Amino acid sequence: MTLDATHDTALRSWVESANLADSDFPIQNLPYGRFRRASSNEAWRIGVAIGGHILDLNLAAEKGSWPQKIAALLAPLAEGRLNPLMGGPVADRQALREALSQALAEGSAQQSALQPCLLPMADAELSVPCEIGDYTDFYTGIHHATAVGKLFRPDNPLLPNYKWVPIGYHGRGSSIGVSGQSFPRPLGQTAGEAGKPPNFGPSQRLDYELELGFLVGQANALGERLSMDEAEDHLFGVTLLNDWSARDLQAWEYVPLGPFLAKNFATTVSPWVVTMEALAPFRSPFKRAEGDPQPLPYLDSKTNRERGGVDIELEVWLQTKKMRDAGQDAVRLSRSGTAGAAYWTPAQLLAHHTVNGCNLQPGDLLGSGTLSGPEPDQAGSLLELTQGGKQAITLPNGETRKFLEDGDTLILRGHCQREGARRIGFGDCAGTVLAAR
Amino acid sequence: MTLDATHDTALRSWVESANLADSDFPIQNLPYGRFRRASSNEAWRIGVAIGGHILDLNLAAEKGSWPQKIAALLAPLAEGRLNPLMGGPVADRQALREALSQALAEGSAQQSALQPCLLPMADAELSVPCEIGDYTDFYTGIHHATAVGKLFRPDNPLLPNYKWVPIGYHGRGSSIGVSGQSFPRPLGQTAGEAGKPPNFGPSQRLDYELELGFLVGQANALGERLSMDEAEDHLFGVTLLNDWSARDLQAWEYVPLGPFLAKNFATTVSPWVVTMEALAPFRSPFKRAEGDPQPLPYLDSKTNRERGGVDIELEVWLQTKKMRDAGQDAVRLSRSGTAGAAYWTPAQLLAHHTVNGCNLQPGDLLGSGTLSGPEPDQAGSLLELTQGGKQAITLPNGETRKFLEDGDTLILRGHCQREGARRIGFGDCAGTVLAAR
Repeated sequence: MTLDATHDTALRSWVESANLADSDFPIQNLPYGRFRRASSNEAWRIGVAIGGHILDLNLAAEKGSWPQKIAALLAPLAEGRLNPLMGGPVADRQALREALSQALAEGSAQQSALQPCLLPMADAELSVPCEIGDYTDFYTGIHHATAVGKLFRPDNPLLPNYKWVPIGYHGRGSSIGVSGQSFPRPLGQTAGEAGKPPNFGPSQRLDYELELGFLVGQANALGERLSMDEAEDHLFGVTLLNDWSARDLQAWEYVPLGPFLAKNFATTVSPWVVTMEALAPFRSPFKRAEGDPQPLPYLDSKTNRERGGVDIELEVWLQTKKMRDAGQDAVRLSRSGTAGAAYWTPAQLLAHHTVNGCNLQPGDLLGSGTLSGPEPDQAGSLLELTQGGKQAITLPNGETRKFLEDGDTLILRGHCQREGARRIGFGDCAGTVLAAR
Repeated sequence: MTLDATHDTALRSWVESANLADSDFPIQNLPYGRFRRASSNEAWRIGVAIGGHILDLNLAAEKGSWPQKIAALLAPLAEGRLNPLMGGPVADRQALREALSQALAEGSAQQSALQPCLLPMADAELSVPCEIGDYTDFYTGIHHATAVGKLFRPDNPLLPNYKWVPIGYHGRGSSIGVSGQSFPRPLGQTAGEAGKPPNFGPSQRLDYELELGFLVGQANALGERLSMDEAEDHLFGVTLLNDWSARDLQAWEYVPLGPFLAKNFATTVSPWVVTMEALAPFRSPFKRAEGDPQPLPYLDSKTNRERGGVDIELEVWLQTKKMRDAGQDAVRLSRSGTAGAAYWTPAQLLAHHTVNGCNLQPGDLLGSGTLSGPEPDQAGSLLELTQGGKQAITLPNGETRKFLEDGDTLILRGHCQREGARRIGFGDCAGTVLAAR
């Protein structure tokens, strides 16, 4: 993937809020999402985030002047469907990005036609960005896997397969929600005293997990695997993802078949898919640390070694009910990022997922696993920050937390920045824990 | 659920093949499926299996005379969509069943109108019976769990949670296919010699698992759990299900998050959903064996103790390529059934799945887990029949099998029979292993 005019740092938009230095959505980003007017019951529409506004692609398809090819690409989007674009050729996505970039750029002849197609974000309600099909959650965060492994096996935290297999498992599609989601604290069984029946009640160890969500683009047919050189072209874009986790339910239920009720009560994603095109300036070569095994051939390619992963800086913020009631902003719990934390690249996840012939479809979601940094205060979960719930953290207002309390709002944030590139961001991925029903 | 005129053993159909004693699809069954004319590219239609024919509900809606309420229920079916009926009230399903039963019964005034709405099954191509959403696989087969546990822990085969938690995990929706499915042998990593890198190649321990598939009817909203008394009304019907499994991939990949590539290359279901209404005569009370713990209150109810599970007799058949080439029929590998094998009832699976607020949707699929009988020759997988691949089984033609070979067609069959009820069946659930690509 090469950089082109859409990545030019000098490019400015006639949508003024997009030119603010700290905007997540400058003209170099152009992520897709689904929205409607707040409190309306209208059908979901597809939009592109630009500064503090959303370009309504239903209106834009009608009011703008577009070459025939671009008009054809806009047609399903104008009907509220992002999946057809996701499942189409990469060249189509690139062509549409270029057309939108030109139309939104300062000096564009389309400004007066498209101005009425903008909706302020504050007036919009957002949905998950596409029809999400199957959801797979990986476990690529090596610092997280090591820290969690240490809680159980201090001398031997990583299992023997970890550095060979991109470990993953299937998650639940139906309970994936968008930023702003709230859900009741899950009920369930937890281990009883030795030899006694299990306990039943609301989870006492409710946690978040700081992850990325990779959305699949083009499909592969059942039985046909993707090579490492094909894999990345099947990836559409990236969101933030919170893999809410009930640690106490998980500890009791997860042998021998893995997490189930501990995870499937809710998963929250950020509303905007930042495309692989927008992320092109932030790629970073893939290289194994000294002493680590090289990937097996089906997980290795020259392209992957060169393009590798995407460097994304990540943050976790918490706003408790007490803080909200007192008008206090959220506080940052930790900072982390993908660099060095994600043991496998997105292309490796796709190649692994399909190596047995498993078919991926446009809109399938792949979680990265918890992306903790190497230092204890860079952890992407409370399980790690509190050493398994043993050491409470203290918030600036004096409250303490071992795990999440009712009324807590947890917010993930992410952005990419690099010398010579315009900073782009993901928007918030927020969710709130309600009392158990 | 009470028995009504639709279950009357004396009831006969004007579709003569439905009255044969060994037909899986007598008028007392009336399962739903999706079909089209073989080798056509037509849209899928909804049909009801009756003897050797399919009643085309698109044509039947048009040609038959139906009360307004039934016509309204037939409308989405006529458009090829089963999910709206599945997600509707139980009373609607019952009303439609009664109307179809009367229309297909001997002496019905509708015979001449509906006769042209029949398609011989031999002329039809079948699809999965509905739009399947999320797929969950449970592990309710206690004889299977015990036998597999013994391979690893001879003295302590069942894990401590087994008799408390209906163990389950998420499966892959996209690779679910219908009887007749074929798929290439999966490739993947398997454990290497101690301290050596893993191996990579086609699975050498490819197996089947004899399961039932429960299809969800009415939805529950995210955050709202189903009580044991509500749960069963959210179940639409049952299919056979083959949970193909690559044992060698699984052994290496499954810690700590459960099976993934070992299972998600293919899952095969039988084409006809046998409804809970049709299964009403075959229910059997739920009772724990002496010494086993009673279920926790959220998994217990008077209704469940009375209605309990469904008694279904199950069989596994194998036709190798050599047999097919020699014109030989499939041979039976084992017989089993749900009675005594399924440790949890379908209602318990639904109540457990939703206890944390997880939302189920019409068309979601729940696998039962492998339903092996208590005796070694009643096993529902080769893993058990061959004691982990140590003891090959010998087929009548002299071939031996430890695991499945390329060209093997594996067929699951199931039926219900009981004194005072008409025997009903599920049709075949067949799938064929192709050579690795």
